[in-house]
Amino acid sequence: MRILLTNDDGIFAPGIQALWQELAKIGEITVVAPDSERSATSQAITVHQPIRVDQHCFDNERVSGWRIGGTPTDCVKIAVEALLDEKPDIVVSGINQGPNLGTDVLYSGTVSAAIEGALLGIPALAVSLNSWQVSDFTVAAKFTSNLVLTTLAKTLPPNTLLNVNVPPLKKEEISGVEVTRLGVIEYENIFEQRKDPRGRSYYWMGGKPVAVDNSEGSDVAALKQGKISVTPIHFDLTNYNIMPLIEEWKLST
Amino acid sequence: MRILLTNDDGIFAPGIQALWQELAKIGEITVVAPDSERSATSQAITVHQPIRVDQHCFDNERVSGWRIGGTPTDCVKIAVEALLDEKPDIVVSGINQGPNLGTDVLYSGTVSAAIEGALLGIPALAVSLNSWQVSDFTVAAKFTSNLVLTTLAKTLPPNTLLNVNVPPLKKEEISGVEVTRLGVIEYENIFEQRKDPRGRSYYWMGGKPVAVDNSEGSDVAALKQGKISVTPIHFDLTNYNIMPLIEEWKLST
Repeated sequence: MRILLTNDDGIFAPGIQALWQELAKIGEITVVAPDSERSATSQAITVHQPIRVDQHCFDNERVSGWRIGGTPTDCVKIAVEALLDEKPDIVVSGINQGPNLGTDVLYSGTVSAAIEGALLGIPALAVSLNSWQVSDFTVAAKFTSNLVLTTLAKTLPPNTLLNVNVPPLKKEEISGVEVTRLGVIEYENIFEQRKDPRGRSYYWMGGKPVAVDNSEGSDVAALKQGKISVTPIHFDLTNYNIMPLIEEWKLST
Repeated sequence: MRILLTNDDGIFAPGIQALWQELAKIGEITVVAPDSERSATSQAITVHQPIRVDQHCFDNERVSGWRIGGTPTDCVKIAVEALLDEKPDIVVSGINQGPNLGTDVLYSGTVSAAIEGALLGIPALAVSLNSWQVSDFTVAAKFTSNLVLTTLAKTLPPNTLLNVNVPPLKKEEISGVEVTRLGVIEYENIFEQRKDPRGRSYYWMGGKPVAVDNSEGSDVAALKQGKISVTPIHFDLTNYNIMPLIEEWKLST
């Protein structure tokens, strides 16, 4: 089994390291990951400047790879279109340090890398640990390894990926696995204005996340209940339901 | 009427200039746009560095605004959350130089800015001219101005925006307006490998676009037929249809 592994925290992040150590037990791993952190880059691609590609050494004979001067989506594109001899059997993105839940997935480099895999016709998983502090990825890595095997055995429908969020708990503390929909997260007090040493103002984006939809069945709710959430994600942004309504507007030039 | 105007080609681009000149006839315009080109940045946000905000002078008393050292999504967020006293009535993103059709909208800064508007509860439009060369935005700007009026008169459902692509034709040459779904575009020969003066290799992303789904009813087909395409876009990435299938996998920790 050939697994393409990427992330948005960069190739040196502990989350991706935990993942390749675990996944190397079940397959041949190619890591193609950003050379530095590229969080919140969504599905950005690098088209106005060249992309650097350097081979990277791993301390494991079943792991090889490259570090990329680009975004997570660049990594998946360049791996599949230029670096690998054959399409991988699966793309795995993660393990992200921090959750990727609800509407926040729109900004996520981790999830976008998996979307790019699915766009290229490859089964894909995005995996995140629901903590900015806890750095024990063991449970999440083991769950991912099992999910890779299940996904390939059961066959994921085309144009779909799975977005997985794991609570920062010991295996025996986790309350189960739930197939969820995306909730809705909004942010309060999102911008902080400051002055630089020359008196010119600048802003920092921050903000306190507020779960606007954390009702039963959402990924946000599942994590609150100490469960692993598995959300099937598609990428057809057409809103078919309202097409008839817009047709009634009878637009003309 | 208060219109928030942004784009991904930057505040100095001719497409946004054509748009504020036209829209200033029907409302008060605030332009909050990137200080330089930010194409293909998708819904990326700037969270690891500060965002510069500078007031920008316009030669029109009904237009004011700021140039932002950030992405199109940053622009909409910072405008609504920090710069404007009130929520605008509508967000308009464009006019982009070049199409935003089919699966390519996933990478588009233009479309993502409109998605951000809709996320913040504001009706939103993204507008692109289907040409990298033609720089006459008159027809597209006039169509957008009418569409702004229609959208506010008819009410766009929540969590939806309209993605508009205009062919580079004279008004009388345009074959009509079609409400469309997103087609599918793939790229051939996407990466070109080169050597720098020191012999180290690097890659350029390019590639020839191939319309994989340009069947009747798609935005890709409408543009080929010389029509303006109007595609309703949502941003709920949950694939509800396959949730029961994944539940059958009976995943456990």
